[in-house]
Amino acid sequence: MSGVSGAERLARVVLSRIGEPGDPRLTDLVHELGGSLVLASLREQASDRELGADLAERLAATDPVQELERADRQAIRFVVPGDDEWPEMLDDLAHAPHLHERGGVPVGLWCRGKLRLDEASEHAVAVVGSRSATTYGADVAGSIAATLARATWSVVSGAAYGIDQAAHRGALAARGPTVAVLACGADRAYPAGHKSLIDYIADVGLVVSEAAPGCSPTRIRFLARNRVIAGLSRGAVVVEAAVRSGALNTASWAGGLGRPVMAVPGPVTSAPSAGVHQLIRARDALLVTSGEEVLEAVGPVGLFTLEDPREPESLRDRLATRERQVLDAVPLRQAADSGSIARTAGLAHGRTKEALLVLHRAGLVEHSLGRWRVAMDEDPV
Amino acid sequence: MSGVSGAERLARVVLSRIGEPGDPRLTDLVHELGGSLVLASLREQASDRELGADLAERLAATDPVQELERADRQAIRFVVPGDDEWPEMLDDLAHAPHLHERGGVPVGLWCRGKLRLDEASEHAVAVVGSRSATTYGADVAGSIAATLARATWSVVSGAAYGIDQAAHRGALAARGPTVAVLACGADRAYPAGHKSLIDYIADVGLVVSEAAPGCSPTRIRFLARNRVIAGLSRGAVVVEAAVRSGALNTASWAGGLGRPVMAVPGPVTSAPSAGVHQLIRARDALLVTSGEEVLEAVGPVGLFTLEDPREPESLRDRLATRERQVLDAVPLRQAADSGSIARTAGLAHGRTKEALLVLHRAGLVEHSLGRWRVAMDEDPV
Repeated sequence: MSGVSGAERLARVVLSRIGEPGDPRLTDLVHELGGSLVLASLREQASDRELGADLAERLAATDPVQELERADRQAIRFVVPGDDEWPEMLDDLAHAPHLHERGGVPVGLWCRGKLRLDEASEHAVAVVGSRSATTYGADVAGSIAATLARATWSVVSGAAYGIDQAAHRGALAARGPTVAVLACGADRAYPAGHKSLIDYIADVGLVVSEAAPGCSPTRIRFLARNRVIAGLSRGAVVVEAAVRSGALNTASWAGGLGRPVMAVPGPVTSAPSAGVHQLIRARDALLVTSGEEVLEAVGPVGLFTLEDPREPESLRDRLATRERQVLDAVPLRQAADSGSIARTAGLAHGRTKEALLVLHRAGLVEHSLGRWRVAMDEDPV
Repeated sequence: MSGVSGAERLARVVLSRIGEPGDPRLTDLVHELGGSLVLASLREQASDRELGADLAERLAATDPVQELERADRQAIRFVVPGDDEWPEMLDDLAHAPHLHERGGVPVGLWCRGKLRLDEASEHAVAVVGSRSATTYGADVAGSIAATLARATWSVVSGAAYGIDQAAHRGALAARGPTVAVLACGADRAYPAGHKSLIDYIADVGLVVSEAAPGCSPTRIRFLARNRVIAGLSRGAVVVEAAVRSGALNTASWAGGLGRPVMAVPGPVTSAPSAGVHQLIRARDALLVTSGEEVLEAVGPVGLFTLEDPREPESLRDRLATRERQVLDAVPLRQAADSGSIARTAGLAHGRTKEALLVLHRAGLVEHSLGRWRVAMDEDPV
């Protein structure tokens, strides 16, 4: 089901094939005017002998009907704005600032997999990070992804080595939905070592690309791809990122979209955490330590509100005020007599002695030779 | 040299001996009215048979001249407001909110050591944290303290196990000034295992206590002590702190004094970092990763302003725009011919070929059988 005309869809196929992902000269115009009009204008431009020779050749070489048939044989569908499956949240990209001369709403997305794009992104969080992750980072990414998956939130990432793959695998292990957004065509696998992971994601989740099938990954396509990861998510979590890392680019896209940017800290001695710490220091990201805290930041208000983590209530918490005052006045090391404790506590001697008995029964103070001290050499504060 | 009368000093000695450190019923009145007046009022109260029997006994038992002589024999001096050595910054405690029913300006501080209290605290940072520190936390605390010490800033801490001792030792190793603020008397050592560390700090730095000599450490004295650590520092750094940790209490005091609170993150899987992460999440502390960042936060504006850490400039940064556009269009994995690269880059074929030659000379692209790919399989973004 779709409100998109056949001509408009075919025009967008041509534009997707001849244009670069996220080229704002194309995406902004198409979002504003539609694919058919923009394509017609390009054909006009191609008729200019000076400017248009190469363009004319590319237009002539592209048969959108064949493109769709070939994609269909690879189980790839082309989803465009107006389709039931198109996620409205992607249209927010029309108003997000361009980064690295990329931006705008994709003219369409090539999708491979059984999940519907709109459903897979309705409750989705991007979990991204360094390719050269540490085992610490990979463990935390996997654990956050698993928590999201158990709450039936999708995990969106880039299928790269390191944090990305740990995030996808964490979601898959918890049998949750996961979406891999690629910089190459949805029929290909980059990195090649993740071919079976990417194929598995297509089996049970969704593989998405703005680049047409067959396209190679290039640096500029990674930058455009990061914007789609952010666009398909309610918020982005960066787990480990060196000072210059693509994950920080994804965080910038999420920030530009006004969506929560979260970051997981690590040891300050670990280079893959340096970019994350910079994000938090600059107040560009909220520090998160768990999937629950991620859900609290992106979830409907109130649904996932966490209690601040607290130690279990201690024996001390259950004491009456007077007993606590007396306990506070009992020396930690060198025992004191009850009179001196009463003076320190500022309480009458008799009441102090009563309280000492209660504390003794509770095992909180020790008594020997008429003197008292705190029972355990625990943290005094 | 001091503008303090002998009578006022002796009155404060008595008040320090009979009162509890940081009891605001005492500190606030004494700050407002002076020690002599408050002591006179207490003597009046002691003459009331109902209320004052115990108080009268304590007043009678205290001979301030003897107290000072005994302290002097232990090389301990009693520093009070109005003394040249009194740090004005401590008077800020008069306006900081009370915590745990403690607060206010100390009636005096008992000092043991060769540093002057005002000089040791003029450029000082508190470095505090968990007693059950990890080696990671202790290493980072020591390294931050050493950086502060090399910049001739004092390191103020509490001489406890774990982070405190690592901070003192880091400063000492860099031959920098360090101040240990104790919850027991300045003549004593808590924990006992740190007796030689505390004595060494008295030799080359300063040991300070609000509690009179001979006093035992009690929980309430630790809470009052934390306020003195914060009061003697331009800012406080928490290195590791479990969810309930005295170090967080010190951070609250620094925050209440309007001084920078800083916190060093760690692995989210490490319990001793949980309290630190909570501080940063609540925006109660600035995340710091190094002594330089601490100095930037507490130092005179501009003196320690840091550059954001950046990777060294890459080969790519030194390319002209056109060459960078072409490099961005070269596939990472499967090689492409120059015509296809020109189309991806959106540049004329001839110019693209010129740029490919430059990139090839720079070792950034590989060429084989008329096709090009990126030379190193490095992080694409």
